Amino acid sequence: MRPVYLDNNATTRTDPAVVAAMLPFFCDQFGNASSSHAFGNDVAGALRHARRSLQALLGAAFDHEIVFTSGGTEADNTAILSALDNRDGRNEIVTSAVEHPAILTPLDYLEHARGIKVHRIGVDARGGLDIEAFRRALGPRTAMASVMSANNETGTLFPVAELAEMAHRAGALFHTDAVQAVGKVPLDLKATQIDMLSLSGHKLHGPKGIGAIYLRKGTPFNPLMRGGPQERRRRGGTENVPGIVGLGKAAELALSLMQGEQGRVSALRDHLERGILDLGQCMVLGDTENRLPNTSNIAFEHLEGEAILHHLGKAGIAASLGSACASGSMEPSHVLRAMNVRPSALRGAIRFSLSRDNTIDDVARVLSLMPDIVAKLRALSPSARTQAPMTASLSPASELT
Amino acid sequence: MRPVYLDNNATTRTDPAVVAAMLPFFCDQFGNASSSHAFGNDVAGALRHARRSLQALLGAAFDHEIVFTSGGTEADNTAILSALDNRDGRNEIVTSAVEHPAILTPLDYLEHARGIKVHRIGVDARGGLDIEAFRRALGPRTAMASVMSANNETGTLFPVAELAEMAHRAGALFHTDAVQAVGKVPLDLKATQIDMLSLSGHKLHGPKGIGAIYLRKGTPFNPLMRGGPQERRRRGGTENVPGIVGLGKAAELALSLMQGEQGRVSALRDHLERGILDLGQCMVLGDTENRLPNTSNIAFEHLEGEAILHHLGKAGIAASLGSACASGSMEPSHVLRAMNVRPSALRGAIRFSLSRDNTIDDVARVLSLMPDIVAKLRALSPSARTQAPMTASLSPASELT
Repeated sequence: MRPVYLDNNATTRTDPAVVAAMLPFFCDQFGNASSSHAFGNDVAGALRHARRSLQALLGAAFDHEIVFTSGGTEADNTAILSALDNRDGRNEIVTSAVEHPAILTPLDYLEHARGIKVHRIGVDARGGLDIEAFRRALGPRTAMASVMSANNETGTLFPVAELAEMAHRAGALFHTDAVQAVGKVPLDLKATQIDMLSLSGHKLHGPKGIGAIYLRKGTPFNPLMRGGPQERRRRGGTENVPGIVGLGKAAELALSLMQGEQGRVSALRDHLERGILDLGQCMVLGDTENRLPNTSNIAFEHLEGEAILHHLGKAGIAASLGSACASGSMEPSHVLRAMNVRPSALRGAIRFSLSRDNTIDDVARVLSLMPDIVAKLRALSPSARTQAPMTASLSPASELT
Repeated sequence: MRPVYLDNNATTRTDPAVVAAMLPFFCDQFGNASSSHAFGNDVAGALRHARRSLQALLGAAFDHEIVFTSGGTEADNTAILSALDNRDGRNEIVTSAVEHPAILTPLDYLEHARGIKVHRIGVDARGGLDIEAFRRALGPRTAMASVMSANNETGTLFPVAELAEMAHRAGALFHTDAVQAVGKVPLDLKATQIDMLSLSGHKLHGPKGIGAIYLRKGTPFNPLMRGGPQERRRRGGTENVPGIVGLGKAAELALSLMQGEQGRVSALRDHLERGILDLGQCMVLGDTENRLPNTSNIAFEHLEGEAILHHLGKAGIAASLGSACASGSMEPSHVLRAMNVRPSALRGAIRFSLSRDNTIDDVARVLSLMPDIVAKLRALSPSARTQAPMTASLSPASELT
């Protein structure tokens, strides 16, 4: 039976059309883009085309605002270090408590190693940012505010255009980790004041090992990777030509398919979600009215998410507890803790993340298996048996807290 | 007619077997290696295998001494910054004047921005390091010495095992940029005191966008890229699975083919070199007795390298002036200037760099064209016509200075 992959916020299948676009650049047009001979010239045009495809997807004003990186983590680290290096006298960062580790881990380190001050703004029970606290944290010492466009665990969207304006009023730069948003929701960066944005190829059916940082024209910048003059001296190192071409193709596909596919994906997600909620004693975490179209984080009261995933996995269905990036750790998700999800639900949260590769059959498979899995696990759970059934409706997440 | 590619120090053709090894990891085994479900488990084994292939090629004692990066530039930048962050009170770096820009550019920046002191040790006319000056520069303030294993422009090999011992005697770490050496000459890191080594996939018929840093067990280390717990917390970011698998396959091929192929390649190179030297008024730059098997840098007295490349290019033959990484700049190579190559030869230097993809036919094509190209250009060169012919023998480079 075809495996069902519902962990698309961890990584997506590379689109076969993306692989086809990449293939000529391994063995045929394999030149170094910086070489002056024909082998190099061939690929320079391909890089230009990819940069323009990404520009179109982001709604950037200029193609040279795109700098290719090795992925979202490099883009995030670059944004943080660049902002701190460029803002004399400003050594504070304002961010959210629910960022990806690619933001939180370097900030933790810099707080310790370089004495910068980090303001980690909390979220409400639906995962929405405390906007007033964000505003209060901004000040004459703020080098940069960095808030994600969409949360990877719950899909909750953040009002980044508005946050960017607030940051600018305080004289700070604004960066957004848009790794989960790019390709899933429309973007028009030129209509915003966002200075920097991070994205990753493998989250939008592009290859792993490639990403980009958007740098608004005129934004002060300090490279993380120094070497040759590649990327207008903003990122040294021989260009990853197949990766860049693949990312460009993925951007093209995402833009052309977004309108039709994201509606279909969101309908599939809603169907899955309703079916699971009907089982009772579970509910959706995050902001159901303001969410990525593909993500559903469902907390199963008094159950262990690990156990549910194990049973799903035996049936060939892949989902996750939360961010793959934090896996290996048995700590409950920092995102759900920041949302103040109550302990009885915290360990039973499962993230289903869909993509345009999913079909109604995939959802039907999950829905056909879930009643048995949940019933079996509830029978084994002492706490579940002593509780009254919870409402099965699509309740606001706030009821969980 | 089949194009002739003699710019393999800029980049190599990805081996078709490497591409074949990578392909399943785009659309089939596409999971995130950090995911706990089957899609992730599949790839974790592939990463382990690749790490071991690289361990074998390098002669490393442990596979966990390999940390995958996005390429040689990231590995070099990581080594430098890590060494400076870990060596309290030591803020000097000793390096050579002929390093790749991935070493020299970050060092120039850090000297300016962080006030570190950089000792750039000179080379002799053959490109060999001034060992006594290196020894004198080492001291109680030295955080790290970093000297390349082989120069990218001339192929000259450096005695890195010996230099590592000298660095250790001064209490400093030793790093080598081995981007040009890995896959071309045998390595046995466990028999040396080298602490860190950088390599790049696309220089050994692997893909672009992937590389590694070797970190000897116990070497103090500070990550450049912080995020998730990947690579034992030494390099955050979703693993570039196809890239890593491709690099692993390239390492396997390099190891198994090295003995036979590097002898064949070096014979081709010597044949090419002798044929060109027979034209007169040109000579080999670098240390012909202590050189990579694939590299020949030939200076054509009183001619412009650009003009020679142009004519070769029209015939479908790709070579280069020097490092592709420095192209776009009209400045003569920093490597050849450090070797004190005289001005009349400096601008006429062409780097031919071969690989196992080259054949005797490739060399024959070049040799059939060069007499006409050189004669034509000499006829146009006022300085060439007023000079006495130079010796055509394989003269030591020192005669050029």
